[in-house]
Amino acid sequence: MPQSDAVNRRVLLAARPSGLPAPQHFRLEEAAVPAPGEGQVLLRTQFLSIDPYMRNLMDEIGPGYAAPVQLGEPMAGGTVSRVVSSRHAQFRAGDLVLGGAGWQDYALSDGRDLTPLGQMAQPSLALGGLGMPAFTAYVGLLDIGQPKAGETVVVAAATGAVGAVVGQIARLKGARVVGIAGGADKCRYAVEELGFDVCLDRRDPRLAEQLAAACPDGIDVYFENVGGAVFDAVLPLLNIGARVPVCGFIAHYNDDTAPPGPDRLPLLTAALLQKRIRMQGFIILDHYAERFDAFRRDMGEWIGSGRVKLREDVVDGLENAPQALIGLLQGRNFGKLVVRVAEV
Amino acid sequence: MPQSDAVNRRVLLAARPSGLPAPQHFRLEEAAVPAPGEGQVLLRTQFLSIDPYMRNLMDEIGPGYAAPVQLGEPMAGGTVSRVVSSRHAQFRAGDLVLGGAGWQDYALSDGRDLTPLGQMAQPSLALGGLGMPAFTAYVGLLDIGQPKAGETVVVAAATGAVGAVVGQIARLKGARVVGIAGGADKCRYAVEELGFDVCLDRRDPRLAEQLAAACPDGIDVYFENVGGAVFDAVLPLLNIGARVPVCGFIAHYNDDTAPPGPDRLPLLTAALLQKRIRMQGFIILDHYAERFDAFRRDMGEWIGSGRVKLREDVVDGLENAPQALIGLLQGRNFGKLVVRVAEV
Repeated sequence: MPQSDAVNRRVLLAARPSGLPAPQHFRLEEAAVPAPGEGQVLLRTQFLSIDPYMRNLMDEIGPGYAAPVQLGEPMAGGTVSRVVSSRHAQFRAGDLVLGGAGWQDYALSDGRDLTPLGQMAQPSLALGGLGMPAFTAYVGLLDIGQPKAGETVVVAAATGAVGAVVGQIARLKGARVVGIAGGADKCRYAVEELGFDVCLDRRDPRLAEQLAAACPDGIDVYFENVGGAVFDAVLPLLNIGARVPVCGFIAHYNDDTAPPGPDRLPLLTAALLQKRIRMQGFIILDHYAERFDAFRRDMGEWIGSGRVKLREDVVDGLENAPQALIGLLQGRNFGKLVVRVAEV
Repeated sequence: MPQSDAVNRRVLLAARPSGLPAPQHFRLEEAAVPAPGEGQVLLRTQFLSIDPYMRNLMDEIGPGYAAPVQLGEPMAGGTVSRVVSSRHAQFRAGDLVLGGAGWQDYALSDGRDLTPLGQMAQPSLALGGLGMPAFTAYVGLLDIGQPKAGETVVVAAATGAVGAVVGQIARLKGARVVGIAGGADKCRYAVEELGFDVCLDRRDPRLAEQLAAACPDGIDVYFENVGGAVFDAVLPLLNIGARVPVCGFIAHYNDDTAPPGPDRLPLLTAALLQKRIRMQGFIILDHYAERFDAFRRDMGEWIGSGRVKLREDVVDGLENAPQALIGLLQGRNFGKLVVRVAEV
């Protein structure tokens, strides 16, 4: 059933997955629409963002930067919502807000997690190109990766919400950009639409050789968001003084146990030393206070002038959110994945 | 036989070791003392520095930052030498110089690799407390580790040429310093003489628990010079925002193959991300131009005022250099290891 005025559909975490999540790990529940107390607003979800980190919230032990979702509770997630009714001084019915209402039609908020969006022609952008994923790309690439003109930048998930922005900003800074993506369509899009210099198919068994051929001067910045075979292909190509911002490693999110040996931890340490590599993890939540204003200004300009292009992969209906996340973890999305929960 | 005026004893690389080097991998040869050509000086070795990186030069494929020693060639190494005779405009007989004459009594140089030492009361300091090892500690700790007052710094090989200086500089900067060293004598020395807050015995099977107990506020800076079990104990204790300068990993220098699984490379990447850790390798050769003057000024002051103490482990006789290196790789030295080649 679609969103209604009378029922609050919620997608709960029904069981903790081991490995890739499946539909039985989620449960769609119908509840009453809650009523806001004093100082609260009632939100109606328009768009729900679907992002890789959500897989980590499904584990019993969370990723450290965010609390795990409890069994029987709604899945967490960023949302664009309309204020239905308000008992909060700073919000009015009809306001469009960015928040974290999670996987449900309606939610209450005390306003502390809400950002007013004003009038936006495309409100879902607040979850992608003007929101967390693009901000992740901006901080990781510019502040940690620090690409210089003429350097080679490699990024995987090249048409994803983060990777596409990493590559386009790197191009704006004069770097040569090599993307890696799943399949010919995505690779063509990365080169023809996003302006990547090269894009390689991650499914090609000769990926390592192709990457070496695509990076004749080695790799100066590798924006790590996937791990796995891509990192293995990148490591031997990293140049002296290379930078590796670590944003994620989606290839391992479904790992139940560590991969079989040999243990390559010492090998990585040796590479860091011999090549004077800086490898640095970051969590975007840490950077809003200092860098979000600069990001909004720069990104607004780049999107407005067409220098950065964005592609959304819109799935209709809250009930399809579980399949959307499952597909995302397998690379089935093409662009920033959002669920359109309501047409309001 | 001791050093003489007539014979040049040289310690050659006789065979490439697999694992820990043994005496048969070295060969002591006697050759004629060479005569300097135009623009050259003849050097007589006083002190030879013995350092962990030398193990890496014994492999067929070098460590990248320096060429491997060829079979039948003298082992490479930093030296303090006296100029015996000079056909070079900038050097005179009797000058004391820092250079890289390697494991031999005499060597020729065109002067480009030589630094005049002037009059030094303790010339071997140019190989330790005022030289490469202490400079390694200085750059790695201050420029990459960036300890703040009140933070916790952990360093292994705590009484070694690098570790002892790391710990003492960290104390000067107001950090709490936890050392790890091999055996009770070294640990006592680190605490009582060098001023470390705590020093743990790396041989204790409960090292991991003891380290956790010694770092109640976690670890903010881990100066990596050993790897192995020490790194394994450190990793879970690293704080959010920790810095890990990677200077070496002596525990693995004798590895023939990668250790058995599971493969913990993804686990390290996950830790870097979740804790926003910066892990950065460095090779001290890169930093002389920019930082050596500041190091000499600061370190000269700290040594002069007694705020940084240095201990040398002096082995007599070039013929004992192989055993000295073999012992160093097993942690048998106690302080900066140098071979006194001649009393000149």
